[in-house]
Amino acid sequence: VFASSEDKNFNYIPKNYTAPNDVDYIHYTSNNTIFGTQFKEIVQTNLPLVCDMSSDIFSKPVDVSKFDLIYAGAQKNLGPAGVTVVAIADDLYQQMHNQAPMILRYSTHINNQSLYNTPPTFAVYVLDLVLGWIEAQGLDSLAQKNHAKATFIYDVIDQSGGFYRGHSDVSARSQMNITFRIADQSLEQVFLAEAQHHGMIGLAGHRSIGGLRASLYNALPMTSAQALADLMREFQRRHG
Amino acid sequence: VFASSEDKNFNYIPKNYTAPNDVDYIHYTSNNTIFGTQFKEIVQTNLPLVCDMSSDIFSKPVDVSKFDLIYAGAQKNLGPAGVTVVAIADDLYQQMHNQAPMILRYSTHINNQSLYNTPPTFAVYVLDLVLGWIEAQGLDSLAQKNHAKATFIYDVIDQSGGFYRGHSDVSARSQMNITFRIADQSLEQVFLAEAQHHGMIGLAGHRSIGGLRASLYNALPMTSAQALADLMREFQRRHG
Repeated sequence: VFASSEDKNFNYIPKNYTAPNDVDYIHYTSNNTIFGTQFKEIVQTNLPLVCDMSSDIFSKPVDVSKFDLIYAGAQKNLGPAGVTVVAIADDLYQQMHNQAPMILRYSTHINNQSLYNTPPTFAVYVLDLVLGWIEAQGLDSLAQKNHAKATFIYDVIDQSGGFYRGHSDVSARSQMNITFRIADQSLEQVFLAEAQHHGMIGLAGHRSIGGLRASLYNALPMTSAQALADLMREFQRRHG
Repeated sequence: VFASSEDKNFNYIPKNYTAPNDVDYIHYTSNNTIFGTQFKEIVQTNLPLVCDMSSDIFSKPVDVSKFDLIYAGAQKNLGPAGVTVVAIADDLYQQMHNQAPMILRYSTHINNQSLYNTPPTFAVYVLDLVLGWIEAQGLDSLAQKNHAKATFIYDVIDQSGGFYRGHSDVSARSQMNITFRIADQSLEQVFLAEAQHHGMIGLAGHRSIGGLRASLYNALPMTSAQALADLMREFQRRHG
């Protein structure tokens, strides 16, 4: 680890770091679902660049030519859990040593057209449907919608006069996962109960950080983000 | 490999073999989907016994206490592809060396209650529904139904006067996968086309053996097995 924001509970994206030269590759995760931060720019390096895009793949256009290996579990923006998408540059693939067990080698799956093992057929099928849905909308349009969804919530936080407190530094705010607390933390359980009453679930923060978290993956409609923003304003009016 | 039926294109279950004593475990697959054979009795051994039950698990009662490790991909009798069930005896588990990569160790999954990685949630959910369905019927009842389904088809083969030819030796016949040929092999494509016309698909044999194969997993209703038997008799009447 040559760059970390652990000193501030992972609330920012490290800058002004020096990448080592004596490593085989550089790895980063483009979006942090737990702390609600997101890289705004692709990491600059001459080394092979590996990225875990599980939680923001296809949420916006990305210059994939900058990466040597991209992988993403489907379960956030792509479809049901159980399938992982991998894109690997030919020249990186050629260099691989293939010392891993057969089932863990990329070559095994490439040479068998992803059918070496019986694949999770339902998840693959739904993934295909979702990719068609993404293609029909276009990534530019999806990026605009995702930005609008996130803006609904961040605006409520920023205009709450401190009633709501965002965890992430403004410069690193994720468009996918909005992490925040209520200044009076005893109100958080009340908020979760009211949200559930209105049919909004999954708003508790990850167990390692607590508080509240709104996940706005591709599948979440604009109206759902707006409904949450409305509830947050209304909740503050009654409890603020 | 200390026992094989390769000499007769895997059409029987080896008997009168001598199991070696200098091995860590004995492994067999209880049902062979490709060649349509099935073990009728549990292999006798004092060594740890490992069984791949993917294609006949929960098709009939089994004395699981005879095994040290049972595993089964869900995609035949249990639910959608993408999840594998593993049952391991405590004492075998305790002896394991854990030299495999983290994700391949049984201990990893046991210690994390099968949630070390994000599991294939849809497949697990459907598996739960299927297990409920199996429990409601009972394994004795399922075994009777599976026997009846297989008997429909085997009876047609045996009463066809050689028009249909079963691949498996009678003593090793699978209740799950019935492999057979039409003596005049040029009729096989005609049969497949007629079957498809009647809404019966997936009847081509595995690419490594050819011919025809009827799979009668738990999910296949009795009426479907009967419909296939009827079509086979009717087909012979017209082409025999």
